[in-house]
Amino acid sequence: MGVELKANERIDDLGLKGLQIIQEKDGFCFGIDSVLLSDFAKNIRKDANVIDLGTGTGIIATLLCGKTSLKKVVGVEIQKEVYDMAKRSIKLNSLEDKFDIINEDILNLNKIYAQNYFDVVVTNPPYKKKDTGLINESEKKKLSRHEITATLEDFISISNKLLKDKGEFYMVHRPERIVDIIYLMRKYKIEPKELRMVCSEVGKSPKIVLIKGVKNAKPFIKIKDNIYIYNKEGKYTDEINKIYNNNIMESENE
Amino acid sequence: MGVELKANERIDDLGLKGLQIIQEKDGFCFGIDSVLLSDFAKNIRKDANVIDLGTGTGIIATLLCGKTSLKKVVGVEIQKEVYDMAKRSIKLNSLEDKFDIINEDILNLNKIYAQNYFDVVVTNPPYKKKDTGLINESEKKKLSRHEITATLEDFISISNKLLKDKGEFYMVHRPERIVDIIYLMRKYKIEPKELRMVCSEVGKSPKIVLIKGVKNAKPFIKIKDNIYIYNKEGKYTDEINKIYNNNIMESENE
Repeated sequence: MGVELKANERIDDLGLKGLQIIQEKDGFCFGIDSVLLSDFAKNIRKDANVIDLGTGTGIIATLLCGKTSLKKVVGVEIQKEVYDMAKRSIKLNSLEDKFDIINEDILNLNKIYAQNYFDVVVTNPPYKKKDTGLINESEKKKLSRHEITATLEDFISISNKLLKDKGEFYMVHRPERIVDIIYLMRKYKIEPKELRMVCSEVGKSPKIVLIKGVKNAKPFIKIKDNIYIYNKEGKYTDEINKIYNNNIMESENE
Repeated sequence: MGVELKANERIDDLGLKGLQIIQEKDGFCFGIDSVLLSDFAKNIRKDANVIDLGTGTGIIATLLCGKTSLKKVVGVEIQKEVYDMAKRSIKLNSLEDKFDIINEDILNLNKIYAQNYFDVVVTNPPYKKKDTGLINESEKKKLSRHEITATLEDFISISNKLLKDKGEFYMVHRPERIVDIIYLMRKYKIEPKELRMVCSEVGKSPKIVLIKGVKNAKPFIKIKDNIYIYNKEGKYTDEINKIYNNNIMESENE
């Protein structure tokens, strides 16, 4: 297909309309977070202009190209090497007309795009606060997991600038940050409207949170039922099987 | 026992150390919310000074007297008739040394108590915003359910004034208000530290939320596993049976 693959890379099939993704063999691989977020955002309107903040390998944007009728999705990735890899995945999938990628710091986006340009923001930002948690030796993993170049507040405040009035914001994050998330979303006028917790099984505390906000919307949030990954037999639940469809999952290297 | 009972009142046994509560036969009866909140707050420290904002019949304060080793709990109730009823329940239970009640608007509490006086605030405030939802014909029910005299922000801001540094705040509320709750708690320096959702059964959206905050604490919230009221057979779950112990429950008249 005319796409180069480096020695430390592999191609994974996404089990969705023939889509594939290039990942590093021992890098930060896409995980269930990205699959759940793209499913959570699958009802975005036809012809939407979408931006994926911190797109990484491009997994969320690629899945959205397969699951929705979006017009265009822009992936923003600060790490040159990861950006380059995602660019080759776009070519591999022949998504050049739908999926643009830019190698940029999200803090500069307000200089690149007009205010209120996008219908939808999707983001799987770094989960850990700066100076907390174990820091991986690899700089790439650091940027993917830790708020080194941009904080949660940066991700949310820039989303406010990028989104149209009533534009939609979809984020996947960790439950222990939910207070920060809700506080900052309201502060930056992206009212939280839907929240879904994801637990490994019934009776366990949630490990992942999915949140949808709408710019300038009125207060009222719908807390949905939990998503459970495994049933009592330790197999995927019907809901997870349905979400994955035939998607191949790689567990996140955490 | 020397306690008068009006024609429209009844005495209910709480199934806990012989405690009883006077309620109106067709008034706003205590429900699962109060039972869950008193259980959620049962680990408050020995000899704590506690205040119950909007104590109503006094159910939460009464249960806390039975479940904990608190030093003193003050119940605050704005409705004279309900205050009078709770006062007779205190006498009925011989709790005069532990449970004080005052007939006061929570907005005046900062004139009555010194700042930072209390170790613990518990509250089951009105759930509905002013001018939303159906208004009951009875004024008493209105005040119990609607933010007519005091808003959620009033309950939280006064709690900040009443609580000591690192004092604990326990509230039961409705999931659709969780954004307001979290935003206001952080605004008034009562950091949300623990959150528990209550669902009727597995697979349903939560109907009740229990939240614990600590004044001036560092950010980091623990989202606990859900509480389920009913199992698949439509019977109370083991957890609910354990919480109720032998408590008799009256369903809330909603």
